[in-house]
Amino acid sequence: MLSFENDYSEGAHPAILERIARANMDQYPGYGSDEVCESAKARIREACQDEDAEIFFLVGGTQTNQVVIDSMLSEVEGVVAVETGHVNVHEAGAIEATGHKVLALTAHDGKMDASELDDYCAVFMADGNRDHMVWPGMVYISNPTEYGTLYSKAELTALHDVCRKYGIPLFVDGARLGYGLTARGNDVTLPDLARLADVFYVGGTKVGALMGEAVVFTHHNMPKHFLTIVKRHGALLAKGFLLGLQFDTLFTDGLYTAIARNANEQADRIREALVARGYEMPLVNTTNQIFVTLDDDRYRELGAKVRLSFWEKPDAGHTTVRIATSWATTPEHVDQLIALL
Amino acid sequence: MLSFENDYSEGAHPAILERIARANMDQYPGYGSDEVCESAKARIREACQDEDAEIFFLVGGTQTNQVVIDSMLSEVEGVVAVETGHVNVHEAGAIEATGHKVLALTAHDGKMDASELDDYCAVFMADGNRDHMVWPGMVYISNPTEYGTLYSKAELTALHDVCRKYGIPLFVDGARLGYGLTARGNDVTLPDLARLADVFYVGGTKVGALMGEAVVFTHHNMPKHFLTIVKRHGALLAKGFLLGLQFDTLFTDGLYTAIARNANEQADRIREALVARGYEMPLVNTTNQIFVTLDDDRYRELGAKVRLSFWEKPDAGHTTVRIATSWATTPEHVDQLIALL
Amino acid sequence: MLSFENDYSEGAHPAILERIARANMDQYPGYGSDEVCESAKARIREACQDEDAEIFFLVGGTQTNQVVIDSMLSEVEGVVAVETGHVNVHEAGAIEATGHKVLALTAHDGKMDASELDDYCAVFMADGNRDHMVWPGMVYISNPTEYGTLYSKAELTALHDVCRKYGIPLFVDGARLGYGLTARGNDVTLPDLARLADVFYVGGTKVGALMGEAVVFTHHNMPKHFLTIVKRHGALLAKGFLLGLQFDTLFTDGLYTAIARNANEQADRIREALVARGYEMPLVNTTNQIFVTLDDDRYRELGAKVRLSFWEKPDAGHTTVRIATSWATTPEHVDQLIALL
Amino acid sequence: MLSFENDYSEGAHPAILERIARANMDQYPGYGSDEVCESAKARIREACQDEDAEIFFLVGGTQTNQVVIDSMLSEVEGVVAVETGHVNVHEAGAIEATGHKVLALTAHDGKMDASELDDYCAVFMADGNRDHMVWPGMVYISNPTEYGTLYSKAELTALHDVCRKYGIPLFVDGARLGYGLTARGNDVTLPDLARLADVFYVGGTKVGALMGEAVVFTHHNMPKHFLTIVKRHGALLAKGFLLGLQFDTLFTDGLYTAIARNANEQADRIREALVARGYEMPLVNTTNQIFVTLDDDRYRELGAKVRLSFWEKPDAGHTTVRIATSWATTPEHVDQLIALL
Repeated sequence: MLSFENDYSEGAHPAILERIARANMDQYPGYGSDEVCESAKARIREACQDEDAEIFFLVGGTQTNQVVIDSMLSEVEGVVAVETGHVNVHEAGAIEATGHKVLALTAHDGKMDASELDDYCAVFMADGNRDHMVWPGMVYISNPTEYGTLYSKAELTALHDVCRKYGIPLFVDGARLGYGLTARGNDVTLPDLARLADVFYVGGTKVGALMGEAVVFTHHNMPKHFLTIVKRHGALLAKGFLLGLQFDTLFTDGLYTAIARNANEQADRIREALVARGYEMPLVNTTNQIFVTLDDDRYRELGAKVRLSFWEKPDAGHTTVRIATSWATTPEHVDQLIALL
Repeated sequence: MLSFENDYSEGAHPAILERIARANMDQYPGYGSDEVCESAKARIREACQDEDAEIFFLVGGTQTNQVVIDSMLSEVEGVVAVETGHVNVHEAGAIEATGHKVLALTAHDGKMDASELDDYCAVFMADGNRDHMVWPGMVYISNPTEYGTLYSKAELTALHDVCRKYGIPLFVDGARLGYGLTARGNDVTLPDLARLADVFYVGGTKVGALMGEAVVFTHHNMPKHFLTIVKRHGALLAKGFLLGLQFDTLFTDGLYTAIARNANEQADRIREALVARGYEMPLVNTTNQIFVTLDDDRYRELGAKVRLSFWEKPDAGHTTVRIATSWATTPEHVDQLIALL
Repeated sequence: MLSFENDYSEGAHPAILERIARANMDQYPGYGSDEVCESAKARIREACQDEDAEIFFLVGGTQTNQVVIDSMLSEVEGVVAVETGHVNVHEAGAIEATGHKVLALTAHDGKMDASELDDYCAVFMADGNRDHMVWPGMVYISNPTEYGTLYSKAELTALHDVCRKYGIPLFVDGARLGYGLTARGNDVTLPDLARLADVFYVGGTKVGALMGEAVVFTHHNMPKHFLTIVKRHGALLAKGFLLGLQFDTLFTDGLYTAIARNANEQADRIREALVARGYEMPLVNTTNQIFVTLDDDRYRELGAKVRLSFWEKPDAGHTTVRIATSWATTPEHVDQLIALL
Repeated sequence: MLSFENDYSEGAHPAILERIARANMDQYPGYGSDEVCESAKARIREACQDEDAEIFFLVGGTQTNQVVIDSMLSEVEGVVAVETGHVNVHEAGAIEATGHKVLALTAHDGKMDASELDDYCAVFMADGNRDHMVWPGMVYISNPTEYGTLYSKAELTALHDVCRKYGIPLFVDGARLGYGLTARGNDVTLPDLARLADVFYVGGTKVGALMGEAVVFTHHNMPKHFLTIVKRHGALLAKGFLLGLQFDTLFTDGLYTAIARNANEQADRIREALVARGYEMPLVNTTNQIFVTLDDDRYRELGAKVRLSFWEKPDAGHTTVRIATSWATTPEHVDQLIALL
C-alpha cells in the first residue's frame, strides 16, 4: 500500500548502499575509531565551517537526545523544551529515565519563544524556593520542529542570546535537519547553526541513511569521556564505520541537501493540491510534514488506500493526520496521492 | 523574630518529647521492627477503620513521595499530578531522579479536576502513538493541597472512580492531612480516605512530630520487599522506633486532630483580620495556609517584622506571600501578627 | 593492515547486503511492525522449535543486555554474573546505569559454576540481613563466554535447575551464539537453549549482520509494554525492518550456522599452528576467539604487522592477546597470519 | 530482653534530649538554614582544625553514602570499596540505584590495602579497553570498618597518597567514627582525618544522637547546589535545626568522644571475659563491635537470653555473631552479659 506515513519507510539512498557494499569486506577498527569516520567528520566540519567542531555518530534520534542531554546536564538540572517537543512527548520518558526533568514551555506551532524562555529563566532565578526546584540546565529545540515549522535566523539568534544570558547551552535536535536547510524561506545555514547552537545533530535516519545521527559539539564542549558515556547508555555501535560510510557519502558533493530538497518539493505539490481542494490545514510550513484535518468518514476512506499518520483528534468528528514525504518520495507516489484527495 | 513562615518551625508537641524521653533508654530492635511501631500502626488502622491497612513510617515528605511513587510505578509509567503539585515543582526533581515523568495537568486552586483526568486518560488510551509515550501509572494529589485547599468527598470520589476506570492507583499526599481533617467545611474523614485512596500518608513533620510520615497502603498493595525498597532509597531510619513512638502518641486520645485544629482556628483569626482590613487574598481556603497579595512596600515593611514565605510575584509591584499557622501557633503570636497588619 | 582484532571488522554477509538492496525502496511501517520482521521471527521460532517464543530485534549487545536485564528485574533485584562477564566489566556500567547491581561470582575460564550459584543463593536466602541486600533476580551468562568457552548441555541444565529452584530467570547472552552452536564438541542446540534459558539472544552483529541482536523470550515472559521499554532506553530502531531483513536472511537455508562454522574452522587452523610452534595459550576453547600469551618483544613485532586485541598483562614481560576470526575470515588471511607466527 | 544487638537501640544521650526539649518552642527557619546549625558547624570545624571545612547534616548513613557518592562521581565513574564495605553489601543497592557501580577490592579484616588500590588503578589506566569500563572515581572506606577494625595513620596516609596519585577523592564513612577516635591504639585524630580525607562524616545515629550524620567536605569540594542535590534524593530534613541541636551538643565540652569511649571500655570488658573463657574470635579489634564464633547449640542457648546480631555461618555447625556496645551500654548490662557467657 502507498505510504506517506513517515520519512523512515525506505532503506537508504542508493549511493549509500553502494558505498557500504563497496567497503563491505574492508577491515575497520571498532566503535568509530576508523578513517572513514574521520573523513566524514572532516566533511561535516567543512560544511559547518567550524574546524573545531567535535563530532560523534549515534544510531537514532531518541538515543541521541537521551545521551546528549544526560551527558551535558548536572544532577540538579533539567532540560527546557516546548510541550510538543519530541523529548517531552514521544520518547517514552527517555530523558526522565536518566534522572532529568523536562521543563515544558508553551509551544507556538511547535516552536519556543525566546522572550518566554527569558521570562521563565528570570522568574526561576528570582524564586526564593529555587533550591528546591529543578534548575534549567539546557534548552532543547528541534528544527524543523515536530510540526514541520522552522526557526528563522532571528528567532534562533534570540534563543541563543537568552541561553548565553543565563549560561545555558542550546541543543538543536536536527533529526530532520536536511528538510529544514532546504526549505523555502529558510534562512538558517549549517554554519549559522554551528555558531548559534552549542550542540546539534544532523539527522541521517530520516534523510537518506539506513540509520545514524551526527552529533556536533560546536564550542569545545563535548563531555569528557564521551565514548564511555555513550557505551554506558548502550548506544555505542560496534561497527561504527557503518555510520562513517553513510555520513561520508551524504556529505560528498552535497548529497545530503540534494535529496532533502526532493522531499520539500514533493510536499509542496501535495500542499498545493490540498489548498486547491479546500482541505483544512491547522498550520503552515514549508518542510516535509503536512498536517491536514479531515472529517472522520474521509479519514477512514483515505486511510484504506494510503498509509498516513494519525496525529490527533481536534474534536469528536474530525481527525488530524500527518502526510510525510522524504528523500525517497517519487513524483509518481505523489501523483497517486493527489489522485486520491 | 516572630515567624509564620511555615508549619515546621518548632520541634514537636510536648507529649511527643515526653514520650521519647520516657522511652529513651529502652532497647528497641532496629528499622521499625519493634512493638511501639506495631502499636502505632494498630492505632492508625483503627482510626482509618481499615484492619488490613499496611503501614510504613518514613522520615520526610519528599522522601515519601519519591519512595511510594517509584515503588508503585512500572518502568514505563509516570505519575499524573497538577502543575502546582509538590512533586512537580518543589522536590528538585526527586521523582524524575528515579526515572519517572510527572505528567502535569492544569491546577484549579491547587486541585485536580476528575473530568480533566478522565479526558487525559481517554485521549492517551486512544493515541496511536501511546507506545512511544509515558503511560499514566498513578494519580498524585495532595490534600490539603499546596494552596491549602481541600477536596470534597464528592471530588475525591470522582477522582477515585476515574482511577478505577483506568486501573490506576490514587495516591494522596497528606503532609498536612491533620489540617485538612479538621478544617471548617471538610467532609472527608480518615476512613473515607482509606477507602478512596490506594495509598496515602498521614503527615507528622508538619503536624506535631519532630519528623515522620505514616504511609498507609489501603488495598493489600504495599509493594513486595518494601523495606528493601526503602533502604535502597537511603530512606530507612535506623531508629525506626522514634517514628513509632511519635505516631503512637499522635494517635492516642485524638492528639493528632486536636493539635491540628488549633492551626486552623488561629488561621481563621488571621483570615478575619485580613478580610476586615481589606487585604487581597488570591484564593479562599479553610486550612492553615493563607495567601495574601501585598504591594511591595507593604511586603518589605511587614517582612522586616515577621517571617513569611515569599510565594510569587503576580505582577511587577506586588508580591504574594504565604502565612502559615501550625499546631504550635499561640494566640499571642497571632495577636502580634494581627497588630502588624 | 591484516586484522584479527575482533569479529565485527567487516560489514555483513553479501547475502544480507543483497537482501537490503533488493528491498531498499519498499515501504515498511516503522519500529519493527512490518511483515519481514514477522517472517524473521517465524524462522527463528522454527529454528528454536518453540512456537510460542516472543522475539524482539535490537541493535547491539550492550544495549540488549541493558534493556533485557533492566526490564526483567524488580527494583530490589540485581543480576548474578561471573566476574569476567561482559555486563560486569566491559559495558561501562550500563547495568548499574539502570539502577541494578551486578552480583559477581568467581569465573572458571569465563563460566559460572552451578553449585557455586546454588551456594550463593542459599546463603543469601538464609541471611538475616537479606532485606538490606540486593536480591539475586536474574542469572546472566554468555555462551560462548568472553573467553570463547562453552557451556555443555549438562552445565546449562544444572544452571537452569538452580535458577528454577530459586525462581530466578536465566538469561543467556548469545552475542557470539553462532560460533558456539557450530563449535567442535558443542552439544547445546538452539532448541536446548530455548528450553533451558528464560531469555537469550541470537547475536547478529558479530555473526554476519551489519548490526542486530534477536532477543528470544521463551516462556511467555516478555515484559509488558516491551516496545515502550525499548523506546525509553533509546534503543528502538526507526527502520526496524532492517533488522528483520537481516535475520530473515540469516535464518533462511541455515545461513547463520553455515557462516559461523567458517570462523571456527579458521580458528582451528590458527590454533594448530600456535600449538605446533609452541605458543602458550592460557586456556583451551573451540570457538572463534584464541588467547595467546607472548613475550613483549614478540607482541610488538607481531602487532606491527597484524591487528590483534590486547587482553591483559599476566606479568611484567608478557602480554596476552586475543586473535578473533569471524564469518568473514578468509583462508588467505589465515595463511598470512600463520606465516607471521 | 537484654540487647547487644547494635549501637542504635536506644534514643539519644540525655543531654541531647534536654537540649531539644529546651529549644522545642523556638522558631527556626527550615532546612538547616538556622543559627544552631551554624554553631554546630563551627564547633565541628574547630574540632577538625579546619576553618574552611564545608559541613552538611543528613539523617542516616546509607542516605549519606548515597548522596555523597552520587554527587561527587561523574556519570562514567564508580566508587572503589572493599567487598565487605557497607556500600557494597548492606545498602540494598543504594549506590547502584543512582547509576554508579561499586568496584570491589579484596577486604583485609574489613580494610582496603593501599598497594592493592594502587595496583587496581594502575592496571585500569593501562587497560586498552578502559573506555568500555567504569572509571574509578572515588575511594570509599569506613573507619571503624564494618568489622570494627581501624586504619592507622600510616595506612590512611598511604590510601590518601594513592588517591592523590590518581586524582581520586577519598571518602571516609564515619558512621561509628567516635568509637574509632577513642579506641585503644588509635592514632588517627579528627584533624588527621580532615587533612587526609576529601570528605568524611561524623556519625551521630550510632554515637548518641537520635539520628544524624555530619558530612565534612575538607577541600572546598562540596558539590555545587548541594542542598538541591540532597533535596533531589529526598534526603533534606525539613526541621534541619534538630540535627544542628544534636551536633552542637555532641561537640560541646567533648561530649562526642566522652560517650564514645564508654562503648569501647565496655567492649573491652566483654573481650576480656571472652578470652578468659576461651571463646573463638575471628578477628581482633578495639572498638565497640566484637565478633565471636559459637557452636550452634551455644548460639541458640545464648540467643534466648540476649539479643545479638547474626553475622554469618563459617561452617555447618557454627555461627558467628556480633556483640555491639554503644554510648548507652551500662556496666550492669555488661555484667549480665558476662554472667551468661
